[in-house]
Amino acid sequence: MISKSTKPSPFKEIRIFGIEGLPEIHQGDDLPALLFARLSSAQFPFLDGDICVVTQKIISKAEGALVDLRTITSSPFAQNLADRIHKDPRLLEVILRESKRIVRMDRDIMICETKHGVICANAGVDQSNIPGDHIVSVLPADPDESARKFRQGLQKYFQMDIPVIITDTFGRPWREGLTNVAVGVAGLNPLIDLRGKKDACGYELQKTMIAVADEIGCAAELVMKKRDRIPLAIVRGYAYQKSEDGSQSLLRSPEKDLFR
Amino acid sequence: MISKSTKPSPFKEIRIFGIEGLPEIHQGDDLPALLFARLSSAQFPFLDGDICVVTQKIISKAEGALVDLRTITSSPFAQNLADRIHKDPRLLEVILRESKRIVRMDRDIMICETKHGVICANAGVDQSNIPGDHIVSVLPADPDESARKFRQGLQKYFQMDIPVIITDTFGRPWREGLTNVAVGVAGLNPLIDLRGKKDACGYELQKTMIAVADEIGCAAELVMKKRDRIPLAIVRGYAYQKSEDGSQSLLRSPEKDLFR
Repeated sequence: MISKSTKPSPFKEIRIFGIEGLPEIHQGDDLPALLFARLSSAQFPFLDGDICVVTQKIISKAEGALVDLRTITSSPFAQNLADRIHKDPRLLEVILRESKRIVRMDRDIMICETKHGVICANAGVDQSNIPGDHIVSVLPADPDESARKFRQGLQKYFQMDIPVIITDTFGRPWREGLTNVAVGVAGLNPLIDLRGKKDACGYELQKTMIAVADEIGCAAELVMKKRDRIPLAIVRGYAYQKSEDGSQSLLRSPEKDLFR
Repeated sequence: MISKSTKPSPFKEIRIFGIEGLPEIHQGDDLPALLFARLSSAQFPFLDGDICVVTQKIISKAEGALVDLRTITSSPFAQNLADRIHKDPRLLEVILRESKRIVRMDRDIMICETKHGVICANAGVDQSNIPGDHIVSVLPADPDESARKFRQGLQKYFQMDIPVIITDTFGRPWREGLTNVAVGVAGLNPLIDLRGKKDACGYELQKTMIAVADEIGCAAELVMKKRDRIPLAIVRGYAYQKSEDGSQSLLRSPEKDLFR
């Protein structure tokens, strides 16, 4: 092993910082204020060009996008389903309420299109990292609006314009394992369109659009880790395109999708 | 904007370096040797724990996994299809030869299961970043074996054990945009299994497996960029799990997949 160099890198570099040390989040908490306190105590400044990546989980907690299963009366459909797959009928009822369409149901798997048009397992309803046996989190009512508000909060406390990506971990067809995806975006273009541009050999990249917001989310997930209570990451050095468009361009329209 | 701090980060950090300056790759090139020359000239050492991410494209070029369309005689099926969707029948023929099954065909889209069991558009056949109008690249014959050989080459030149991930950019159902995925892996566990582990609230993460090799690939894509001829990245600071298993665990078995 060669000892760690202190020289600046000769190569273009992206750095991803996992911001540990935030408190447990409760409804009504001002997340940008908590981040400001944490970064101040660590003497860690935002730099121009930084991107802030936040898990859906703490956004949902701060917004109170939580459901107490003890308050849920499950429908006959949820009860039938629960009997068959041995799950809590109230949990299934919450999943159904978050869904506008079921894409696939098989064994104990429900792939749902959420009210927002996002397709994922269990309509984004999740029991992990929530204190309390009967509480589940749902996706924020409008994740792009949540991202915009977070960005406004960063502007207020840090006096900087910092794009925000809200992520959740989703499965996908054909491949095992979850990866992070961007469910809410503010301040950057989530989908870089290279169509019509030429590659290094002069060949036109006809169909190449890169889902950079999802890729930034994946990069952030590497420092977050589900078990370690690191719900926020700062991505430094990625030359993003400014945009006010939110995450909608990441969602494929039904008429273009072969797997609905 | 606050001026750039030179202090070490108080937070856990992952760094991703995009290694530009490699020459155009030709069949028979020794990629680890070229990387050794490039890093030596830049005085940039590998550190213990680094991961090397390489695009499928330069692996295919070095291995000669290229097809000259002028040598291809297209089948009647490829010709019929070509007439209908206005594509080169020889290109379609190559795609069919790389496929063991067509998952979906619609309009000009072909989602194929490759000989390796990977599901992606056009069976991984690609015209971008290849010099010459009639040349297309195909996936390496055995991407895990390619990754193992690359890792052996790094061991030889750098005297270090450095895991290797070979990536390609794939589309996916439901979401627009390509993201990087790991098609070949050597030396690290591509799929971290958190099942049975407890989250920060003591809740058992029943279904959580994270496709970290795909996420590392996505992180690397942020410095690679399709147009910029940066076919290699070094990921520093991610505490990977050692493994000799290759990429197979990332492929969902047909009986577990709802979208074949």
